[in-house]
Amino acid sequence: MRKLGIQSIEDIALGAAVLGTGGGGDPYIGKLMAVDAVSECGPVTLVDPSEVPDDALIVPTALMGAPTVAVEKIPRGDEAIGTLRAVEKRLGTKAFATMSVEAGGLNSTIPLSVAARLGIPVVDADGMGRAFPEIQMFTFHLHGITATPMAMADEKGNAILLETISDQWTERIARSITVAMGGTAIVSLYSILGRQLKEAAVPNTITMAEKLGRLLREAKLSKKDPVRELLTLVHGHRLFKGKVLDVNRRTVAGFARGEAILEGIEECAGSKFTIQFQNENLVAIKDGRILVSVPDLITTLEIETGLPITTETLRYGYRVVVVGIPCDRRWRTDEGLKLVGPRYFGYDIDYVPVEHMMGHGG
Amino acid sequence: MRKLGIQSIEDIALGAAVLGTGGGGDPYIGKLMAVDAVSECGPVTLVDPSEVPDDALIVPTALMGAPTVAVEKIPRGDEAIGTLRAVEKRLGTKAFATMSVEAGGLNSTIPLSVAARLGIPVVDADGMGRAFPEIQMFTFHLHGITATPMAMADEKGNAILLETISDQWTERIARSITVAMGGTAIVSLYSILGRQLKEAAVPNTITMAEKLGRLLREAKLSKKDPVRELLTLVHGHRLFKGKVLDVNRRTVAGFARGEAILEGIEECAGSKFTIQFQNENLVAIKDGRILVSVPDLITTLEIETGLPITTETLRYGYRVVVVGIPCDRRWRTDEGLKLVGPRYFGYDIDYVPVEHMMGHGG
Repeated sequence: MRKLGIQSIEDIALGAAVLGTGGGGDPYIGKLMAVDAVSECGPVTLVDPSEVPDDALIVPTALMGAPTVAVEKIPRGDEAIGTLRAVEKRLGTKAFATMSVEAGGLNSTIPLSVAARLGIPVVDADGMGRAFPEIQMFTFHLHGITATPMAMADEKGNAILLETISDQWTERIARSITVAMGGTAIVSLYSILGRQLKEAAVPNTITMAEKLGRLLREAKLSKKDPVRELLTLVHGHRLFKGKVLDVNRRTVAGFARGEAILEGIEECAGSKFTIQFQNENLVAIKDGRILVSVPDLITTLEIETGLPITTETLRYGYRVVVVGIPCDRRWRTDEGLKLVGPRYFGYDIDYVPVEHMMGHGG
Repeated sequence: MRKLGIQSIEDIALGAAVLGTGGGGDPYIGKLMAVDAVSECGPVTLVDPSEVPDDALIVPTALMGAPTVAVEKIPRGDEAIGTLRAVEKRLGTKAFATMSVEAGGLNSTIPLSVAARLGIPVVDADGMGRAFPEIQMFTFHLHGITATPMAMADEKGNAILLETISDQWTERIARSITVAMGGTAIVSLYSILGRQLKEAAVPNTITMAEKLGRLLREAKLSKKDPVRELLTLVHGHRLFKGKVLDVNRRTVAGFARGEAILEGIEECAGSKFTIQFQNENLVAIKDGRILVSVPDLITTLEIETGLPITTETLRYGYRVVVVGIPCDRRWRTDEGLKLVGPRYFGYDIDYVPVEHMMGHGG
């Protein structure tokens, strides 16, 4: 158990965007919301999953929808308290803590803001170890825990409670509500007990995000190579160095879909590189061949600063290093790959772990 | 207060389809569901709004969505009990009775089936005096009563509870849920207290539907002209006699939209007639000129039998009489016309009451 002050929160917002693999929301908005809450209400208590009592209820809070919309349709700030309360009311139990469902600039910090305002802890874990675009794509789902009862709210004051027969139906119905609400919604889903958490969650995501954020902040001062430092911390691999030539991006059916096209520079000169995304980066294609795919993480970092660039901010002219990071081991099982492997997203290839593909360290 | 047996229910299903003005669901499916419930559980008690205690809660039950889908995606039968219970639970009050929100072959009989199974009465009233396609189009809305808390369910077992900031938002969000659920949903909305009911509902809709249904049934035996009899009962007008040449119908965004094109016969020979619909018939156009429009009722009856034909069953070859029926007086106020007048549906004309347009009785 430890306290997170404003510096920690700024680091978490930034570092989580590395794990957000293009999605999970803009770190700047996430930082503003959480810093604001901590300035008003004091530091947040971060607890390890092992510190959560077995019968304690954890109610996560998150933003659902297209990150392209989230940059203009800013949450009001108290919607997530409303969704957490709605799930509490439905279950007849008070939440012991809240947590992130996925890593990301916004989705790692919304729970911090809720925790500060309600005076409850945040659990140092999430349900992906990265970000994924759909509701069934959770380690919780692999452990038989369901997304519903799920509460949704928008900044206008509309509120919905869902109870469905499967996480796939939750995805379908909640996605259409998100679109009707204007492209994003604040949600509470996958409420979970302490004893389930210890098995089903990916631990230490907040601490890892904080380490990544701190590293990027300190590298700026010490003039160390931030990308090299970062790759060591996450056991990642350098995939490509290039300049963004073009980004095709459409907000469709509640997702930001599209691709970024890069032209190689320095040691990659002469090569072409494409990243295709659905909120999150799905595949990295080098000279026509898929190099790395989901469920491994593909993240775009600014060359000089190592700062992560999310899909909605990526644009012409950025000079970037694309990195690949091994995903949580649960995603590499048959069950995990069925849920989030390349074939689910329509790519007719077998998954090859990034470290096998690259052969050696970054 | 009186009891409704199987014969009454068959009459109501048929007669309500006349008031359903092309929408409100297929009378055959509605009849089957309600007759089934009454056969199992005994007759239903019909109460007049004046017999409902002022503080008693009424929770309506209905089908929402495209009637074109409803003919193939049949409700399981107990979804409406689930939605009624969900609203009861949210409000912390037991329902004294259920009721129809709109007249229609299915939407007048679903509440009968629920009432039979739960052993509660049905109120002899509805919220339109006809059928309309959207959630804000209720006399309840004109009286400041809101659609939410609204419960939705599908035949698969998915359940949703909505609380919104306006009936227009309810329409937008609930419509998208209906589409995600496959095109139709069972709903409970516009729960209302006895004292509100007396002011805000259109009274006697069930009794009127029963009279119309009985008239059509008896006319078949007595060889009276069923259309003439029917027009007398509803103060209606004969608009056109013709043969259906073509029906363009698409199920889009949760509605059945399109138009039917008729060629005149007998005294109408040489004329052309078009009916445009969005679930319900919106305008009747004779030789290029709008003759009758919402909020007045436009209903298509088979010439020989007087049987009402809903938009989803209308097809090439039917020989029909199109009739126009004056709507409830509340729809003819400025507020009513803003909500359901021709301009709301995109027709750039002023509303003229059917009886002014036709000049004389049918």
